[in-house]
Parts: sequence; structure tokens; C-alpha cells
Amino acid sequence: MQRYFINEEYEDHQLFVLSGDDFHHASHVMRMKIGDQCFLTFSNEVAIVAEITGILENQIELKEIQKETAQKEMPYSVSIACGYTKGDKLEWVAQKATELGMSELIGFPSKTSVVKWDEKKLGKKNQRFEKIVKEAAEQSHRQKIPKIQLLSSFKQLETQLKQYDHVLIAYEESAKIGETKSLVKSLQMIVPGEKILIIFGPEGGITPEEISLFESYQGVLCGLGPRILRAETAPLYALSAMSYQWELLN
Amino acid sequence: MQRYFINEEYEDHQLFVLSGDDFHHASHVMRMKIGDQCFLTFSNEVAIVAEITGILENQIELKEIQKETAQKEMPYSVSIACGYTKGDKLEWVAQKATELGMSELIGFPSKTSVVKWDEKKLGKKNQRFEKIVKEAAEQSHRQKIPKIQLLSSFKQLETQLKQYDHVLIAYEESAKIGETKSLVKSLQMIVPGEKILIIFGPEGGITPEEISLFESYQGVLCGLGPRILRAETAPLYALSAMSYQWELLN
Repeated sequence: MQRYFINEEYEDHQLFVLSGDDFHHASHVMRMKIGDQCFLTFSNEVAIVAEITGILENQIELKEIQKETAQKEMPYSVSIACGYTKGDKLEWVAQKATELGMSELIGFPSKTSVVKWDEKKLGKKNQRFEKIVKEAAEQSHRQKIPKIQLLSSFKQLETQLKQYDHVLIAYEESAKIGETKSLVKSLQMIVPGEKILIIFGPEGGITPEEISLFESYQGVLCGLGPRILRAETAPLYALSAMSYQWELLN
Repeated sequence: MQRYFINEEYEDHQLFVLSGDDFHHASHVMRMKIGDQCFLTFSNEVAIVAEITGILENQIELKEIQKETAQKEMPYSVSIACGYTKGDKLEWVAQKATELGMSELIGFPSKTSVVKWDEKKLGKKNQRFEKIVKEAAEQSHRQKIPKIQLLSSFKQLETQLKQYDHVLIAYEESAKIGETKSLVKSLQMIVPGEKILIIFGPEGGITPEEISLFESYQGVLCGLGPRILRAETAPLYALSAMSYQWELLN
């Protein structure tokens, strides 16, 4: 069943409305009719099952049938920080990491990042990322849309580190020496309300200086299994491992 | 450190040789010199650290320094079967699923597959897939190259099902009803020497008839967490979950 995000907090109304792009999608792409149902998800993470009661020239009107009770979101807030990579790899990550349950994607210029994007370019990219993430959230039946931050300096990442309860650094060298306990320990000791950040390097990896800095904020190095993963694959491993630990095992 | 696959079984030689594409890569791309080291991995899954002793016009000569002792492979054989998807999604899965440790990729024509490829086209694609998988295996430091099968009929998949000890079907409807136990149970009860197959549908999903058929071969439906994953994302979730259960938790 189709899902649309309404950019307002939920309030108990007689009537809900789809307009703009969502109206167009529902009426012209999905060809929905009176009596058809869909999910509506609101900005305060409330989601309902709604039924179409009217189709007008520029909007669709719906009534609430019931609340959506299933929990689609990860039990803890997971932020993914990725050193900027070449081409459209970060866009791939934005889409797949949304399907896999991240709360937030932070792109940052890492020391070994080949690409350098200025503020103007980052502003444009931000819009594109927001669109990708919204569509992926709808398709994967998320109950909230992940946030996007495309930082223009490494310092902007540093200043945010203290707000996280757990900071992990996915490190290739840890994988190579067979480090297997850090990720498990962090995933098993997190408690409700806590926020976890996991940092991934670009193709060239994270530098020892960057690691030292992250460690000064209680960052912990971890391996993601014995095989070396590409920069765009590693975040998907981490999120899948989190879902397996928190949503399937528990 | 670079890794090359030698398509022969390991035998204790004074001298090992890189020729052809691997010679070209080592000498012209990596610009390796006498004294440089790399991994050599053989078709019987033995891997060694080797050092260059001579660089000739068409080949590089190496001597063995020591065996590679680290275990890079999953403890159980994992085959991934994917209903054919549009565009190059399956190529993408081939690369990432190799990084993530699969033993084998089987593409098959599912009832809802939009794409239809004939034997000739599949033959060409097979070559391309083998190249993708070999490169991904080298880059991720695998100790074996996954196998590829691009089937031209659904029946060809059916005839193979009985060779697997565990057959799982990743099913969207299972995810929607909150099924969380099947995958965990299968991953925790597998024993050494067993082979697991996990089947993924194309964009249009797996049909009830296909499910019945798989179930007649002891196939078990499973959910991959509460969010709906795209056809190309789901195999990566499954493999990451397996690595987490078998390689990090155990």
C-alpha cells in the first residue's frame, strides 16, 4: 500500500489532504480512486491508514481509518557519517541506508576525500539528497524521513560529536587484524534514548589523525567482519547488523 | 596489500608467476617492484604472501614468504538466488554480495521479472559477471571467487533446490506482518558443512505459486526486518546479518 509523508504534525482531523507532487503521484501515477487506501505519515512520526473520500482538480481528500500500529523504525537513533566519495556513491548510500533504517546521513570532507564541494554545490546536492531520502522512506514504509547534513568542513563534524552517546569508527585496519568485538559490544549495551554515530571513511580511508580526533570524543574503532568492504557497502553492513541485533534477535 | 587469484591449485613451488591481465595490473597499474609483496590465492582456497623476485617482459616471478592464516571466508556456504531485475541491479548485487561473502550468485527468470534474456545474451552477461565478481573478490580480500549461474529457465533453479540444507525465501509479506524468527533460527541451527540458499524476488516480488514450489523443497519464508527493502538491497541485508551472526557474535 502506498505511503505519503505529510510535512505537518498529526492532528485529529475530519479531512486530510494530498496536494502538489503527492497529489500528482496518487492521481496520475498510482491512479487511485475513491475508496482506495494509503498510509499517511506525519512529521511527529504518527502514521495512519487513510481512505480517499474525494478527488478534486488539485487535491485528494482522505479520512482516517485507523492508526498504523506496526513499528517500522529502529529502536535507537542511528547517524551515519561518510567521508565524501567519488561520483554518486553517496546518493546510493542515502537511498539504501534509508531503506535500512538510518535516522541521519552526514556527509563530510575527509582528509583523503578526492572530491571537494563548495557551499553552493553542497546546497544543490542537499536538495537532491532530500528528494532521494524522502522517496526511499516512502518506498520502504519508514515512519520518519531521515535528516541530511552535507558539511563543508571537517570541523563541523567535530563540533557535533559530543551529542552522541556512542561513536563508532568503521576501520579497515581493524577488520584486517580480525577485530570482532567492538560493534557487538556497542550494539548490545545501548539503552533507550541513546544516539549512535558510526563514521565511515572515503575510498582512501580514514587517517590516523582523524582517528585520534574521533577517539578523543570516545570514538571506538570497529571491524565489520573479515572482508574489506567498499566505502559505499560498509554503511549497509553496519545498518543491517544493527537491525539484526535489535529487531530480529531481541 | 594487493591480491591476485591464480586459477590453479596450490602446490609448493620455488617460483610463482603472474601473467596476462594480472601481470599487466601488477606491473603497469600498481607499478610493483622487486621486493614488493602481494597475496596469491589459489583455486583450492589456499592463500600465501608472496614477494616479487623478478619482473620480465610478460610475467612477474614471485616466491612464497608464508601462508596467509587469517580466515576471510564465511564459515558456511551461502548461495544467493535473485529473480532477474531491470538494468544493472544484478551486476551491483554481484559486486557487493561478493564483498559481503557469498559463495554463489544464481540469477533466474522469476514470474514477475520484466526482463527476459535469451541463452546468447546470458552467455555474454555471464562473462561480465565473472569479471565483476573476480575483481570484487580481489578487492575485498576473499580467499575464493564466488560462482555465477545465470539460468535461462525457472526449472533450472527448481532442479538444484534439493542440494541445499537450508532454503530461505526473503518475502516482503513476511516483513510486513512482523515475522522476525525464521532467519535467526536458520542462522543459529546451521552446522559445519551445510549449504544455505536464500531466494530473493525481482521488483515485482515472488508469486504465491513460486512460494509453494519453494516450500515443497523445505523452503522457509522469512522477514528481513520491518522495513521494505528493494530487490537489490535485500541480499546485502541477509549477507550482513549472516556475517554478524556467524563471524562477530559467535
